[in-house]
Amino acid sequence: MRDLPPISQPGDQHQKPDHQAPVHREAEGTGTAANSLSGTPTLPRDQDREYVGFATLPNQVHRKNGEERCLGCIFLSVGESGLGKSTLINSLFLTDLYKDRKVPNAQERIDQTVNTIKHTISIEEKGIKVRLTVIDTPGFGDAVNNTESWNPIEDYIDQQFEQYFRDESGLNRSNIQDNRVHCCLYFISPLGHGLRPLDVACMKALHNKVNIVPVVAKADSLTQAEVHRKKMKIREEIEQFGINIYQFPECDSDEDEDFKKQDQILKWRTRLTLTSCC
Amino acid sequence: MRDLPPISQPGDQHQKPDHQAPVHREAEGTGTAANSLSGTPTLPRDQDREYVGFATLPNQVHRKNGEERCLGCIFLSVGESGLGKSTLINSLFLTDLYKDRKVPNAQERIDQTVNTIKHTISIEEKGIKVRLTVIDTPGFGDAVNNTESWNPIEDYIDQQFEQYFRDESGLNRSNIQDNRVHCCLYFISPLGHGLRPLDVACMKALHNKVNIVPVVAKADSLTQAEVHRKKMKIREEIEQFGINIYQFPECDSDEDEDFKKQDQILKWRTRLTLTSCC
Repeated sequence: MRDLPPISQPGDQHQKPDHQAPVHREAEGTGTAANSLSGTPTLPRDQDREYVGFATLPNQVHRKNGEERCLGCIFLSVGESGLGKSTLINSLFLTDLYKDRKVPNAQERIDQTVNTIKHTISIEEKGIKVRLTVIDTPGFGDAVNNTESWNPIEDYIDQQFEQYFRDESGLNRSNIQDNRVHCCLYFISPLGHGLRPLDVACMKALHNKVNIVPVVAKADSLTQAEVHRKKMKIREEIEQFGINIYQFPECDSDEDEDFKKQDQILKWRTRLTLTSCC
Repeated sequence: MRDLPPISQPGDQHQKPDHQAPVHREAEGTGTAANSLSGTPTLPRDQDREYVGFATLPNQVHRKNGEERCLGCIFLSVGESGLGKSTLINSLFLTDLYKDRKVPNAQERIDQTVNTIKHTISIEEKGIKVRLTVIDTPGFGDAVNNTESWNPIEDYIDQQFEQYFRDESGLNRSNIQDNRVHCCLYFISPLGHGLRPLDVACMKALHNKVNIVPVVAKADSLTQAEVHRKKMKIREEIEQFGINIYQFPECDSDEDEDFKKQDQILKWRTRLTLTSCC
């Protein structure tokens, strides 16, 4: 599994994103952005909603790599239709990635097979550019027969690995474009009693190829107690079926105590799966 | 399609059910009951929630058939797991039909095929007995491949028709037990954009054999505007695919005006599909 950089660092955790940042336009789209992940370990619950923008990321990348650059972020969004996938992506980055979206009618849904659609947008926050790519999988889980409906998704991921391998084996290796998927947001229905057989089969097919972050979709339609029970149940089933979901990497031993604490909290949160309130 | 008796009559529409009615015990279960269908045509919206119990039904049956008897009510409950099927039945009849219920774990759900389970309970309200039978279809819609997962349901309905036909063709016709299904409550997920291909296929397989009442499950997780849009969308798709859902029968021409008005309202409501708030 590939490692992602940590979400934020302690010195930046109270910093709000600059929503008035100048909009940068590229071929595929434009927007401003804010990351809604919270990670303050010592604050009480009601103050725990401070936003942490991705504008803090380059500092860390800079510290690690010694150079500034445009960040690339490639998400794979998998789940049945109607679970709020597009809404979550739009909320997460305060953008409108699906301007020309057309919801298929019933007949189109019946005829539809699973395919992958790539949306790319360049967003800017505090002068930091992120090239956000979201790969959608319309039709997944909607058919009567969903056998191997995860194959197109698996193929897409494999193709990106193959492309990168070919580019790295080539002569001109200075400008390789890395299109490998960083993260797969797997949306779980809030209705079922835990994971469905389709969820298990799909996650098992993908878990060794991409970092899976399970998301309980539309969790605001559940009570707090239900959310807790569902998280526990899903976590149990994920362990039972040996599915490897994304685990935050261990932080460096020379980091300060606050950072280590925050890191622990983030790990604990992802162990319980994320929830989406759309 | 078979006709059901109308739900209530004007003289009884403000009558609340007697929840303290003596409990009648039978082999399969026991309970008291209340029907939560409201049908007052002239009352404003906030007063439109008066309960109409099934205790009013025998008066109408008596009027039509000239004899009093124990009423039989056979429901078929179809939908994916987690849509609140059991909760709706329990709320509708203020009973606990699924005392020994065990939610299958993930491995059991993967191995599970669709089958039909019959629950019977005898409930009493104001001295009126109703023998309520609910046929559950666990496993429906939960598998990865749901092709023809409606076959066991179709077979069950056909078997009841066949049994009744055999009984009617026999010598002793005085004590025939009619097990034909009165009504199929088809639960539609509140998450999808309208009907799913599985919903269309299943309803099309059953609509000529049983009265289908589509129910938008867990509609309280949607806003009023979303509920309205979803109802409209589902109604359109039901018409588009030529699915025959249950329509209230025309009332007798000699009924009074209030009754006719109430009848019209009930018809209009069912055209928009029912919603369940569990």
